[in-house]
Amino acid sequence: MIRVVILGAGNVAKHLYSAFFHQKHIEIIQCYNRKNLQLHPDQKKETIIKDIRLLKDADIYVLAVSDDAIEKVSSIFPFKNKLVVHTSGSSPMGIINNKNKKGVFYPLQTFSKDKIVNFTTIPICIEAENQIDLEILRKLASSLSNKVYTISSEQRSILHVSAVFVNNFTNYLFSIGSDICNEHRVPFEILHPLIQETAQKAIKMDPSNAQTGPAIRKDVNTIERHLEILTNTTQQNIYTTLTKAIQSKYGKEL
Amino acid sequence: MIRVVILGAGNVAKHLYSAFFHQKHIEIIQCYNRKNLQLHPDQKKETIIKDIRLLKDADIYVLAVSDDAIEKVSSIFPFKNKLVVHTSGSSPMGIINNKNKKGVFYPLQTFSKDKIVNFTTIPICIEAENQIDLEILRKLASSLSNKVYTISSEQRSILHVSAVFVNNFTNYLFSIGSDICNEHRVPFEILHPLIQETAQKAIKMDPSNAQTGPAIRKDVNTIERHLEILTNTTQQNIYTTLTKAIQSKYGKEL
Ligand SMILES: NC(=O)c1ccc[n+]([C@@H]2O[C@H](COP(=O)([O-])OP(=O)(O)OC[C@H]3O[C@@H](n4cnc5c(N)ncnc54)[C@H](OP(=O)(O)O)[C@@H]3O)[C@@H](O)[C@H]2O)c1
Ligand SMILES: NC(=O)c1ccc[n+]([C@@H]2O[C@H](COP(=O)([O-])OP(=O)(O)OC[C@H]3O[C@@H](n4cnc5c(N)ncnc54)[C@H](OP(=O)(O)O)[C@@H]3O)[C@@H](O)[C@H]2O)c1
Repeated sequence: MIRVVILGAGNVAKHLYSAFFHQKHIEIIQCYNRKNLQLHPDQKKETIIKDIRLLKDADIYVLAVSDDAIEKVSSIFPFKNKLVVHTSGSSPMGIINNKNKKGVFYPLQTFSKDKIVNFTTIPICIEAENQIDLEILRKLASSLSNKVYTISSEQRSILHVSAVFVNNFTNYLFSIGSDICNEHRVPFEILHPLIQETAQKAIKMDPSNAQTGPAIRKDVNTIERHLEILTNTTQQNIYTTLTKAIQSKYGKEL
Repeated sequence: MIRVVILGAGNVAKHLYSAFFHQKHIEIIQCYNRKNLQLHPDQKKETIIKDIRLLKDADIYVLAVSDDAIEKVSSIFPFKNKLVVHTSGSSPMGIINNKNKKGVFYPLQTFSKDKIVNFTTIPICIEAENQIDLEILRKLASSLSNKVYTISSEQRSILHVSAVFVNNFTNYLFSIGSDICNEHRVPFEILHPLIQETAQKAIKMDPSNAQTGPAIRKDVNTIERHLEILTNTTQQNIYTTLTKAIQSKYGKEL
């Protein structure tokens, strides 16, 4: 049995609670958050605390708090020498206060409030200061997911930058597509299968080999026509920046 | 029975051949291409022609040739008053030569040479000059797909610009993520589930409401750290451009 305490009551804390809750070999001892919030409808009230000094003994303390709160919350921690892990992709392990044993338990996925998550296929990136702690984290992670990776803080920062490109920026491009369609009263749903296939392709083949479109074809007429259709200067700017980047990657000039 | 002729032997021509080939109520009369290429291993040699003057009578002629060849190939067409359609997202219907009846049969998907395509869920955008031709196109399209849309040339050009954002540019962002990972020897496959979820989310909810990440959070520290990790100026430029755009969309300044 791995005894876990969850700190924080945001997206990640809630999804981890639900995932741990169903595991036979994991016991959620306590949850701490400043507002005394329940993380799950089935959670017993007495396991929720808002005074961190009331924390009980456990095997792992999971700091699922905002990136900029990790340092502070770990510093007011009432124990020494416990395994304290954060769940952040962008913060180094070393940000956790020195009085405890540090670790990272980073589920590499984008969590939303209302969307149920299947943890089985979510990569979990773990890191610890020593082999014993790493094994505990591996056990905890493997109980949720088939994809557990031991990743250093430096590698994790690389994954995090890449994730900004493939998730945050990509979503923003989807929102531009949606804005353009809405503005002209064309149903955006017509593009849904294309969005799905674009992602599928990037998984099945190297995205560098999947590049298509007017930029790589050097189809100047289409590019000009597109820039005329776009009246929004931000959209035009992004179109031009990405078109130039694609052309320079594939050895062609705009 | 709808009697079809396919012109061209590229990606779209081949995928359409395979899709039509299996339909009971569609007969592929002939295929024209300059190189006498076979579109399908089961295709009979005598149905392939490279001299356009040998074209036979049919109900629909599908011009699945490069955008900049549509006008030319339709002009050397040996018939008058036949229904001639192109398959392009970016070309107006009017580009087809006046001597024939014009139409569009645009399958809105990204086709690769080797990937088998399930047409059932691919949106097909049709357009014609009159109701009778539109009905023939609808019949042809409905035999392949459950998603048939009557779309004007203007609307189609809107879809095409949007498709560049959600497909071409998105794929390019995936390739940047892949490049960053490869450069630092981090397996890109760790990001595959995130890519899949990003696409799923854009389909299930309005992408404008799904935006997350350091840009929208105005997380200046993370943004600065990311720009330091990126040593490639193109990547830095794209990171900054998209971060600024997200912040200005959501009312925050970099
Ligand atoms: N969201 C994702 O998709 C995702 C994915 C992977 C990893 N992560 C990482 O997981 C961690 C949590 O992210 P999240 O999305 O769950 O964030 P979130 O939904 O914004 O929740 C943040 C939580 O941290 C708490 N908190 C903030 N400052 C605090 C403080 N000084 N003391 C105590 N609690 C404090 C908040 O409590 P209050 O309500 O009291 O402020 C809230 O419960 C972050 O490190 C994030 O980078 C997020
Ligand atoms: N690929 C996609 O994902 C996709 C999706 C939807 C719509 N479309 C549209 O479908 C059409 C065909 O695209 P594709 O991807 O199939 O292109 P492709 O693979 O590049 O094939 C183009 C075909 O056009 C022929 N062609 C070019 N110039 C010609 C000419 N002057 N005379 C006769 N044949 C000529 C080529 O023959 P040669 O080999 O002899 O040059 C080739 O068979 C385009 O309008 C495109 O916009 C493409």
